[in-house]
Amino acid sequence: VTVHLVGAGPGHPDLLTLRAARLLAAADVVVHDRLVHPGVLDLVRPGAPRIDVGKDAGDSHLQERINATLVELGRVHDCVVRLKGGDPFVFGRGGEEAEALRAAGIAVEVVPGVSSAVAAPAAAGVPVTHRDHASAVTIVTGHPAAGAPPIDWAALARVGGTVVVLMGVGGRRRIVAGLLDGGLAASTPVCVITRGTYASQEVVRMTLAELPDAGVEAPSVLVIGSVAALDLASASIGTGAVVADHLGTAEVAR
Amino acid sequence: VTVHLVGAGPGHPDLLTLRAARLLAAADVVVHDRLVHPGVLDLVRPGAPRIDVGKDAGDSHLQERINATLVELGRVHDCVVRLKGGDPFVFGRGGEEAEALRAAGIAVEVVPGVSSAVAAPAAAGVPVTHRDHASAVTIVTGHPAAGAPPIDWAALARVGGTVVVLMGVGGRRRIVAGLLDGGLAASTPVCVITRGTYASQEVVRMTLAELPDAGVEAPSVLVIGSVAALDLASASIGTGAVVADHLGTAEVAR
Repeated sequence: VTVHLVGAGPGHPDLLTLRAARLLAAADVVVHDRLVHPGVLDLVRPGAPRIDVGKDAGDSHLQERINATLVELGRVHDCVVRLKGGDPFVFGRGGEEAEALRAAGIAVEVVPGVSSAVAAPAAAGVPVTHRDHASAVTIVTGHPAAGAPPIDWAALARVGGTVVVLMGVGGRRRIVAGLLDGGLAASTPVCVITRGTYASQEVVRMTLAELPDAGVEAPSVLVIGSVAALDLASASIGTGAVVADHLGTAEVAR
Repeated sequence: VTVHLVGAGPGHPDLLTLRAARLLAAADVVVHDRLVHPGVLDLVRPGAPRIDVGKDAGDSHLQERINATLVELGRVHDCVVRLKGGDPFVFGRGGEEAEALRAAGIAVEVVPGVSSAVAAPAAAGVPVTHRDHASAVTIVTGHPAAGAPPIDWAALARVGGTVVVLMGVGGRRRIVAGLLDGGLAASTPVCVITRGTYASQEVVRMTLAELPDAGVEAPSVLVIGSVAALDLASASIGTGAVVADHLGTAEVAR
């Protein structure tokens, strides 16, 4: 008996791993977040129940119920797949789920996934690192769970790398204030990717000073740093359309 | 005509994306780094040439030759796959390759991959973020390319999140000195994962103070922060063996 904590990737089903696809096809039951792409759920074994646990960030009782559900299912099924957006160990509280399962004597396999922190920027043509721009990238949540350690945004501003914020739309005024306090220039480029890798993906570029009052909606990934001004991909997964190509040679990816 | 910059993932072929596997099966030619898993190369279309560009970090002339090779191949083939370890835009200079191709009028598709910065720790049971430990993770290279912007290690120490260092074995004395300068405790847990997700994977845990004199070899991923003391997975991809399980219920992943 094993519960598999499986990364669903950033959205588009083509960015699932081979192992994730095989586990979905073999699962006795799948427990998933609300934000999993319908095309990913299409890969679940026909007849296997799919349980939408509709996770909202920061609701600690909900997390306890999810943990209890996983333990209960792990006791009666051979192959339980817990499908989590992006990577199970990049936010999303996969670590807590693994701890609850281990404490109940249930084996856990973690299947890493493509994180939206890297893939959503890539879908907008933005490399989170680049020799001419950034030797580090920090991935941070704008909406930490209750009791989570705080982030020193001013220190982060001084590191000198790219900052990628997940779940940062609601807290963007506070985040921008902290980064400006730390000395990050108001003119620092920002790229906001909404529903990255989905057909409805939207990309907006602006400066750090403009971010607090910009009309952006969740779920979005915020990229802060000079890489955010780049646009290096002619085509990207999921959008079904060509990203702006100044050279006129772009093709649609499929 | 498109050149596809494709993430090969951390090593084990099961962690390739579906799109990467399909592109390898359709490729006219594949250009790859030396460190790609043989099982990944087994997925290349029979008959398609495989060009090993044997990339060594920091050799700028080699990078220029790789860029020129990609442009040349992109002019004569319909489907060129440039296969890069991990994710194309998390170090590895994929951004520069995309720029060279775009400058030559060749369309570029970026296919994100699972980064070893997240997957190697996961294979050792280490979550790079966790509510009780870290609300941020910084991925940094210990071996920046010539001319790349510097990292302020002391500022990084003050951010309060997990630090993951790629290509950090050679520079670990300098890195540890910088983090200690910034106030990180000498007792901070460190986990070193060598050849993560390969059958020969090795995991060693220590403190930050012990890292400079520890016998670790490249390629390794260094995880620095309190998460590094955790071991949450009963089984992990690629090792073919069970990670230590205190509860006696673990299974091998396959």
